[in-house]
Amino acid sequence: MDISKLSCVEFTEKLGSRAPVPGGGGAAALTAAVGTALGVMVCDLTVGKKKYAAVEEELKTLREQAEDLRRQLISCIDEDAEAFEPLSKAYGIPKDDPGRDEIMEACLKGAAATPYKIMELTCQVIDLHRVFAEKGSVLVISDAATGAAICRGALRSAALNVKANTMYMKDRSYAEDLNARVEAMLRKYLPAADEIFDSVYSKM
Amino acid sequence: MDISKLSCVEFTEKLGSRAPVPGGGGAAALTAAVGTALGVMVCDLTVGKKKYAAVEEELKTLREQAEDLRRQLISCIDEDAEAFEPLSKAYGIPKDDPGRDEIMEACLKGAAATPYKIMELTCQVIDLHRVFAEKGSVLVISDAATGAAICRGALRSAALNVKANTMYMKDRSYAEDLNARVEAMLRKYLPAADEIFDSVYSKM
Repeated sequence: MDISKLSCVEFTEKLGSRAPVPGGGGAAALTAAVGTALGVMVCDLTVGKKKYAAVEEELKTLREQAEDLRRQLISCIDEDAEAFEPLSKAYGIPKDDPGRDEIMEACLKGAAATPYKIMELTCQVIDLHRVFAEKGSVLVISDAATGAAICRGALRSAALNVKANTMYMKDRSYAEDLNARVEAMLRKYLPAADEIFDSVYSKM
Repeated sequence: MDISKLSCVEFTEKLGSRAPVPGGGGAAALTAAVGTALGVMVCDLTVGKKKYAAVEEELKTLREQAEDLRRQLISCIDEDAEAFEPLSKAYGIPKDDPGRDEIMEACLKGAAATPYKIMELTCQVIDLHRVFAEKGSVLVISDAATGAAICRGALRSAALNVKANTMYMKDRSYAEDLNARVEAMLRKYLPAADEIFDSVYSKM
């Protein structure tokens, strides 16, 4: 699918419609990619300035990590759409079809995987924003804080989209293991994102 | 400017670069538009279902309000870029130029206006999400919660981008009035967005 190639206007038009995709997972992925790009920008506007020569090599390395995460998150927009399609078809299988449960279960696991991946990637971005807010040029650290606030929204959104699938899984041990990992990420990274934001906002 | 016509891939590429726009304000506007579109989707997937006939007329009306807000937020992507351009040029005026202060002040006021508008629009969206999370189809209320979480990120981001301008204003009475209105919106709408999210998430 090429949903990531839609314009910003078209993406939000299609999201706000009856079309099955993009949905909440794709929205979380784009939001996280936007939050990540702000980190890349902080590096670009810090590297090369004399005043920040001491952190230049570190920020160059972290810029490449952020750029790689941005690309992966953009790919998640299309991955989420691809994983949702078989699930939306599976809902149409007659309820008395003996194969329905097994197909549904596989589709739910597939549909939970991308928002879970979005969470893992977004946590890595939040770790980077902590460094960007500390070491980036003072002229652009507000963009690191903005990125952290946007990533926080993406993280919660992706979590909800994992649980919207795990709640219907019959394999409760699989579902609860995934839910526990989701909760662990939220417990650590929601306050982390808030701390990054507050550390910058409180100085303004 | 036609930044809102960039693809999602291109928007995040350009955001993560040395290009002066899009910046934090544009990122906040796109994020808020994504959060808003999720509300339009909730209406589209609720209206027309027998089970929700009682709320159909209300949701039809609110859908149009959400769609109008989505369009306005998308326009803010380009408005923010247009307001930032004169400011980025004003920074280049020699510091001993007698006209510099007046030009800078006008540019700062212009650059603060769009993120402030993004905040006002996003607060309206959060009010809508509260209704969508209460009255939307149970199959899609997770999208209202996702929308609220994403709007929360956009709201904080826009607030930071107002203050990134007010902090440099010489007209402190204007700046502090704007800051106070920003704080009032945050005090009311950050917890409101969290409540909407939690009300859905806690049931999953």
